[in-house]
Amino acid sequence: MKPELGVCYYPEHWPEANWAKDAARMIETGLTWVRIGEFAWSRLEPTPGNLQFDWLDRAIETLGSAGLKIVLGTPTATPPRWMMDKFPDMRAVDAEGHLRKFGSRRHYCFSHVGYIDECKRIAQILGQRYGRNPHIATWQIDNEYGCHDTTLSYSDAALNAFRRWLADRYGPIEALNTAWGNVFWSMEYNSFDQIELPNQTVTEPNPAHVLAFHRFSSDQVVAFNKAQVDALRPLTDAPLLHNYMGRVLDFDHFDVGDDLDIATWDSYPIGFLSDRLEADEAHRVAFLQQGDPDMQAFHHDLYRAVGRGRWWVMEQQPGPVNWAPYNPAPLPGMVRLWSLEAVAHGAEVVSYFRWRQAPFGQEQMHTGLLTPNGHGAPGLAEARQAADDLAALGEVQPARAPVAIVFDYASNWAWTTQPQGAGFDYFRLVFSAYRALRRAGLSVDFVPPAKVGEKHYYLILAPGVAVLGSLEQQLLQGCDLAIMGPRTGAITEDYQIPHAGRPGLDHLSSHVDLIETLPPQVVRTVDGGGNAEHWVEHLSGEAKTKLSFADGTPMLQGDAGLWYLAGFPDETLWDRVITMAAKETDLTLHMMPAGLRRREMQSHEVLINYNAHPISWNGLQIEGCDVLFRKHDSH
Amino acid sequence: MKPELGVCYYPEHWPEANWAKDAARMIETGLTWVRIGEFAWSRLEPTPGNLQFDWLDRAIETLGSAGLKIVLGTPTATPPRWMMDKFPDMRAVDAEGHLRKFGSRRHYCFSHVGYIDECKRIAQILGQRYGRNPHIATWQIDNEYGCHDTTLSYSDAALNAFRRWLADRYGPIEALNTAWGNVFWSMEYNSFDQIELPNQTVTEPNPAHVLAFHRFSSDQVVAFNKAQVDALRPLTDAPLLHNYMGRVLDFDHFDVGDDLDIATWDSYPIGFLSDRLEADEAHRVAFLQQGDPDMQAFHHDLYRAVGRGRWWVMEQQPGPVNWAPYNPAPLPGMVRLWSLEAVAHGAEVVSYFRWRQAPFGQEQMHTGLLTPNGHGAPGLAEARQAADDLAALGEVQPARAPVAIVFDYASNWAWTTQPQGAGFDYFRLVFSAYRALRRAGLSVDFVPPAKVGEKHYYLILAPGVAVLGSLEQQLLQGCDLAIMGPRTGAITEDYQIPHAGRPGLDHLSSHVDLIETLPPQVVRTVDGGGNAEHWVEHLSGEAKTKLSFADGTPMLQGDAGLWYLAGFPDETLWDRVITMAAKETDLTLHMMPAGLRRREMQSHEVLINYNAHPISWNGLQIEGCDVLFRKHDSH
Amino acid sequence: MKPELGVCYYPEHWPEANWAKDAARMIETGLTWVRIGEFAWSRLEPTPGNLQFDWLDRAIETLGSAGLKIVLGTPTATPPRWMMDKFPDMRAVDAEGHLRKFGSRRHYCFSHVGYIDECKRIAQILGQRYGRNPHIATWQIDNEYGCHDTTLSYSDAALNAFRRWLADRYGPIEALNTAWGNVFWSMEYNSFDQIELPNQTVTEPNPAHVLAFHRFSSDQVVAFNKAQVDALRPLTDAPLLHNYMGRVLDFDHFDVGDDLDIATWDSYPIGFLSDRLEADEAHRVAFLQQGDPDMQAFHHDLYRAVGRGRWWVMEQQPGPVNWAPYNPAPLPGMVRLWSLEAVAHGAEVVSYFRWRQAPFGQEQMHTGLLTPNGHGAPGLAEARQAADDLAALGEVQPARAPVAIVFDYASNWAWTTQPQGAGFDYFRLVFSAYRALRRAGLSVDFVPPAKVGEKHYYLILAPGVAVLGSLEQQLLQGCDLAIMGPRTGAITEDYQIPHAGRPGLDHLSSHVDLIETLPPQVVRTVDGGGNAEHWVEHLSGEAKTKLSFADGTPMLQGDAGLWYLAGFPDETLWDRVITMAAKETDLTLHMMPAGLRRREMQSHEVLINYNAHPISWNGLQIEGCDVLFRKHDSH
Repeated sequence: MKPELGVCYYPEHWPEANWAKDAARMIETGLTWVRIGEFAWSRLEPTPGNLQFDWLDRAIETLGSAGLKIVLGTPTATPPRWMMDKFPDMRAVDAEGHLRKFGSRRHYCFSHVGYIDECKRIAQILGQRYGRNPHIATWQIDNEYGCHDTTLSYSDAALNAFRRWLADRYGPIEALNTAWGNVFWSMEYNSFDQIELPNQTVTEPNPAHVLAFHRFSSDQVVAFNKAQVDALRPLTDAPLLHNYMGRVLDFDHFDVGDDLDIATWDSYPIGFLSDRLEADEAHRVAFLQQGDPDMQAFHHDLYRAVGRGRWWVMEQQPGPVNWAPYNPAPLPGMVRLWSLEAVAHGAEVVSYFRWRQAPFGQEQMHTGLLTPNGHGAPGLAEARQAADDLAALGEVQPARAPVAIVFDYASNWAWTTQPQGAGFDYFRLVFSAYRALRRAGLSVDFVPPAKVGEKHYYLILAPGVAVLGSLEQQLLQGCDLAIMGPRTGAITEDYQIPHAGRPGLDHLSSHVDLIETLPPQVVRTVDGGGNAEHWVEHLSGEAKTKLSFADGTPMLQGDAGLWYLAGFPDETLWDRVITMAAKETDLTLHMMPAGLRRREMQSHEVLINYNAHPISWNGLQIEGCDVLFRKHDSH
Repeated sequence: MKPELGVCYYPEHWPEANWAKDAARMIETGLTWVRIGEFAWSRLEPTPGNLQFDWLDRAIETLGSAGLKIVLGTPTATPPRWMMDKFPDMRAVDAEGHLRKFGSRRHYCFSHVGYIDECKRIAQILGQRYGRNPHIATWQIDNEYGCHDTTLSYSDAALNAFRRWLADRYGPIEALNTAWGNVFWSMEYNSFDQIELPNQTVTEPNPAHVLAFHRFSSDQVVAFNKAQVDALRPLTDAPLLHNYMGRVLDFDHFDVGDDLDIATWDSYPIGFLSDRLEADEAHRVAFLQQGDPDMQAFHHDLYRAVGRGRWWVMEQQPGPVNWAPYNPAPLPGMVRLWSLEAVAHGAEVVSYFRWRQAPFGQEQMHTGLLTPNGHGAPGLAEARQAADDLAALGEVQPARAPVAIVFDYASNWAWTTQPQGAGFDYFRLVFSAYRALRRAGLSVDFVPPAKVGEKHYYLILAPGVAVLGSLEQQLLQGCDLAIMGPRTGAITEDYQIPHAGRPGLDHLSSHVDLIETLPPQVVRTVDGGGNAEHWVEHLSGEAKTKLSFADGTPMLQGDAGLWYLAGFPDETLWDRVITMAAKETDLTLHMMPAGLRRREMQSHEVLINYNAHPISWNGLQIEGCDVLFRKHDSH
Repeated sequence: MKPELGVCYYPEHWPEANWAKDAARMIETGLTWVRIGEFAWSRLEPTPGNLQFDWLDRAIETLGSAGLKIVLGTPTATPPRWMMDKFPDMRAVDAEGHLRKFGSRRHYCFSHVGYIDECKRIAQILGQRYGRNPHIATWQIDNEYGCHDTTLSYSDAALNAFRRWLADRYGPIEALNTAWGNVFWSMEYNSFDQIELPNQTVTEPNPAHVLAFHRFSSDQVVAFNKAQVDALRPLTDAPLLHNYMGRVLDFDHFDVGDDLDIATWDSYPIGFLSDRLEADEAHRVAFLQQGDPDMQAFHHDLYRAVGRGRWWVMEQQPGPVNWAPYNPAPLPGMVRLWSLEAVAHGAEVVSYFRWRQAPFGQEQMHTGLLTPNGHGAPGLAEARQAADDLAALGEVQPARAPVAIVFDYASNWAWTTQPQGAGFDYFRLVFSAYRALRRAGLSVDFVPPAKVGEKHYYLILAPGVAVLGSLEQQLLQGCDLAIMGPRTGAITEDYQIPHAGRPGLDHLSSHVDLIETLPPQVVRTVDGGGNAEHWVEHLSGEAKTKLSFADGTPMLQGDAGLWYLAGFPDETLWDRVITMAAKETDLTLHMMPAGLRRREMQSHEVLINYNAHPISWNGLQIEGCDVLFRKHDSH
């Protein structure tokens, strides 16, 4: 694989006279891919049925003949204003009951059948016109599903679809009442038509009700995407993809990904650190202009799994963005670093957002590779440098990761519904585990529940996986050591506490007597070092205790092949657990200093320094904000 | 009186085969009471008019014949789903105008006449069937009025009832305009039909309007409860009760209590510390797993007054709950401590919530005495221990309290409407007074305004009582020394500043020149020690000044039998004031160390140590999380 | 000019028997003006068409014949309840879609044509009756436009008017689409009827859309005011005025002011410090009972510009108010200090709010000069003292200010729409510039964009002025040195980034490569001292760099007559910039200690000490909370 670079471009924003010059300059910059079209519906069809594709024909011809491969987007994330006149009820309704208005983007409800038909129609028109066009090398469907809290909708369209979905799933209403435990608080229904969406209840709704609504809502995203896939497949052989967003967890990306060929995601490291990560002030300041050293890698590894090995960065931050609470600039070198880091994790393409900063609209303060009037912004030179680096690097292949983490979107829905403590969060827990593996210098895979056991690992972590069921056996077979807990296997598919006890703990003949959640200023000390924070389970039973709390109760119980963590580990405790696990499994660790990270490729060890200062490690010197590709034979 | 223990149980949640075993195990645990039925409407009447009481007959027979006395609840806090079809407008509307939906509990508006009739009907059906059943030893009406902010409703039903209530209270509209001062900002009405509920106004509504709405809303709760009382009274001789919640102040519990025989409350010490108390971080951490040392006692004493001497804890926290922001476990010994502390304050029964943890529904993370699959949770052994302790204690009687605090729900409504400073809160003020009395080792009574003067005390505190009127005379007659202020007597019944001056201060020939409220970081130092915080009144007049602010202005003015506090005292200042009051009245104080509390019974001095560590006091050693019943003759 | 004092009075709140006594006591206190009538509609017209003016005739006669000059208010800020029956849709709708209810004040939408007609009618009736009454010396129209967030309304009336306003402004819909850049995200409209108000969109709306809505909303306030001006002008020769509020920026006060004769504002120094100013805790505590030392002066200077030289304080805080989060009392001397400070800035009249504290209604905790039952509150003696001081002072004239700041309401709308960083705020920026000038002892003028160049100054600051256009030339001509930046000239009238570059920077042959915003804990150090905070621009180009960031990039670039600041200066950096500018322009600075401020009059140098302690400065001693008028010849 030879990784390439690309850029997002909006021909409809610029005079046609500039297109060829822009294309030439892209090529000069070392870019080989360009994404277009994904917000252009009002230009493709200014009024209903009035198709205007000439300009797009010419744009494709201009860009393609300059030597660029094109990602063509379906414009369904931005239905034009006239669509609202046709379907006034097509927009999503928020949890407070407000119909979300036209005037920005993503103004549709995933359950609106009329709009889905319109999306199939426009996808088919695009497919018919460009499906065999040699310049169209891949297709993007819609844009950033779930962004701006758009997965959950409380519209009538959603309500009706939810009732049908429930009836399909549960059959007779009595089955639903039993599955959900509706006898509690007399919540029993006489028919599916009595079921409402779970918002605006007097106090919290039944968690089974909420979890079902999340599952349904995720399925609606999958079906929405599938409708366009089905329209395009007969018309093109080019691969289909979608661009996901970081830490958007409202729908199951694996399920959407199963219908597509490539997963891509939109990587905004500095924006994410500012508003999507739990971190203390010192960490925020230290990495203010670099982003968190694990957040990008986490998503690279996650979307590699979503794409079944094929993945891109579709939108790479090239400078300050416009949407975080504070928007500082990347330190010099970071745009290049982010690009190369993605390649180290196996990206086929890294594509910058966007070519030229828009002088109008909501994102006019979002930097591009060029300023609005066409000067090179600081990101341009770094993109050029990254292109040179990639040329020098040549052909590369990802290495096999020795360890994996189970990532399960439904667990996030479950624990968001009943966190039990304000400090407990599924992503936060999984991310703490991921960080621990990365501090140990390990390359990490993510595995969706459905695929656990397909590949074998030294070690699989499955913290907080809500529903275990038969996954337990797959886990035990899929690795030398599986570490579960805290909260793994804690509920059934229908949000009940498993009657027979928790699958994983049962295997250890252990059980949970009590669960506690802790405020931020309180932790539980573990004998020998480290603490549990946020979440603590009181275990009893016959399993061997490998780590104990200061009061002698078990923190880590385990047996051959299966360990269980009775609390949410802090960094010190995670490091102890990973070290113990490495001993158990003959896994080699490479302890990394703060801000320096390591990723294996088949041919290279890649060292990525998120610090502003140089770091010495293992006899190597890595400059601040720099990446070192060390050939395996270069010792 | 021989105090007893009980438990809350939901036969409808469990296989009928288990009922007898559960009952036997309750008896083994030393429990003699069981509460059932209060959320079972959907099982008693699955569809309109389709009564299914066989299962309840059998449950009552099984539990009763095992030796348990039964509290039977009316199920009106959870109307079944079909009721919503009958009365779509029966649910409460919140201040933002949202109809609160079905799917949890308490989904009704207290003003909906159709639903009130349904409640009378189901209460009557229950009364007819079980009113003379020997196992039914008492009745609980509804469950936790006011919980989940359900007292105030902005529905059409409430609006119409409010207009009638106003017309009844004020007669001609001109009288209301005058009483409320509606000439201010041209708010005058031409008829009662023009009056809206006081939400969503451009800026704050007239405080007189808001206070009237609070009074009305409280009266609606009283009437709602009374409807079921009237249905049951002819059908049973068993006492009637309700289970109130801690720090729920939206309706007048004394008024509801006047129609019942026993007051009970639901005591969740750790949940309350986490989300219902002003406290600094050090205090929250020190008592994280015990609860605040005065919060339970406060409510015990308050509900003893509401029950006119007869009161229970209906729901006692047995382990972590599910609803606070953080839910840590009680320290070992605390479940027993809470139980015995309640007895020390005169509880007839302490009943744990709940027998077995539910594996489904909203409260599946709420601990019971048993885990969902029937293991004994930590609380079970402590309940057994408490039962043994009570058996050893034998017959007890409460002692007479030497001091009292006037507790007035309407004052809370008044000061919530116009706090004037964000730090001023009625409960906070009264609780600070209560804590001061407890630091002095005193047993405390609460007295509603209507009963001041019925019993005589050494000392009565009446801080923040909004409307004095004729209460002033009762206060002076009811004790050797009454301490008023701050903000006592500050408004009239219709929320005006009394034209003639404040009743209490007038008695002292003193008056208020100015009122200040202070941010948290600013206090006013008092000569000789201590500070006023939050609220300061500038007094002038002829009364003797007993304590002065650093600038020489009066902090405490007083005369024989009546003192007035010109600010909100901090702990040091409260201690000084109580010490001065004790000298004035020959009251004996017992200064207590932090976390140790004292309560007198006729036969015993009870010492309750909320600290995790042992405490020595007065020659006695009290273990951490322990209770000592010291016989008065044991010196 | 001989400055005078006045007071706000509500005859309709008090027995008629008291009016004459009140009037006599006002005169005794040294007051010569009284404002009445502005909330009295329900007494003037209790039912539609039923005019009741006798009481007002008598009140005017009583007050006037006592020697008081009367400001008569039109009562349009408080339409009576029956008006809601006539126009149920006349009330504003908030951004969440709630119709704001009757029951307080300002319950109208500026765009409701029916209500505007009613306002014209009542103004005309008042004008016909009192337009030539010799006691009516001036007229106040409405009260505190914009207070309680009432400028923006999302009602149908506003929507329809907005569409007409847009059609008038833009002509064909294509022009609007182009001007707003609606091609972005396919936001193009086919007709004006498709345009909605910019609330409740899925994510942020187009900033051009929001800015247009702000401009429209401001124009609606201007038109609303103008309707009453037009009704009154033919009927009276007395000057017309309005009372604005501090830091209310939702409409353009200059535009409203252009239709009036005098600008007045309502000054509540302690309330403002508590809830309308960015400040650290130390500053809040130091000036808790005095108010911020620059906030009042800022508004005095601003409203002098709004009134084209003629301005008053219509409502002067006389003691604690009722509406801030915390409401402490002014320190002794502050009521007098505030009064005299206003005079130093050129106020014609300072009028206290209010004569006697109301015992009812929303403001019953708002202090007056008298307590509700008629005692003198602390403010009364200070008002009397201020009257004596003014008598001693005699005739005064304001001096010419050597420096000016451009103040542009539209810039606030622009930057509120897209702050880009949570720390960036237009008022905050301008206020920081104002403070810097005041620390240098300078008297300051504000200049609206339309009048830049009419007077010549040594120095004009134009920080954050959003749209420069032809203003650039006026600025350069209007002063010896203009300092622009940060963010000056950053957008066009239609919220686009200027295609040709920023006007001011272009003049310097400089341009912006990148913009960063910073969180509070991060600053950018400037060589030689001081920091930029919140906002940093990366400049490049040929202009001379006068100050550099630590990394060598420009912080201040400049050429003869024009300097540009590339960041938001902290206090140290502002002081450096002002000092450099003074050298450049031969401006004399008078560096002031903290809390002491200086204002020039023609005859006097006035020194105002906001500190509680005395200050020595320039050989003078100024007591705490005191004002010193030093005659220029008194050296």
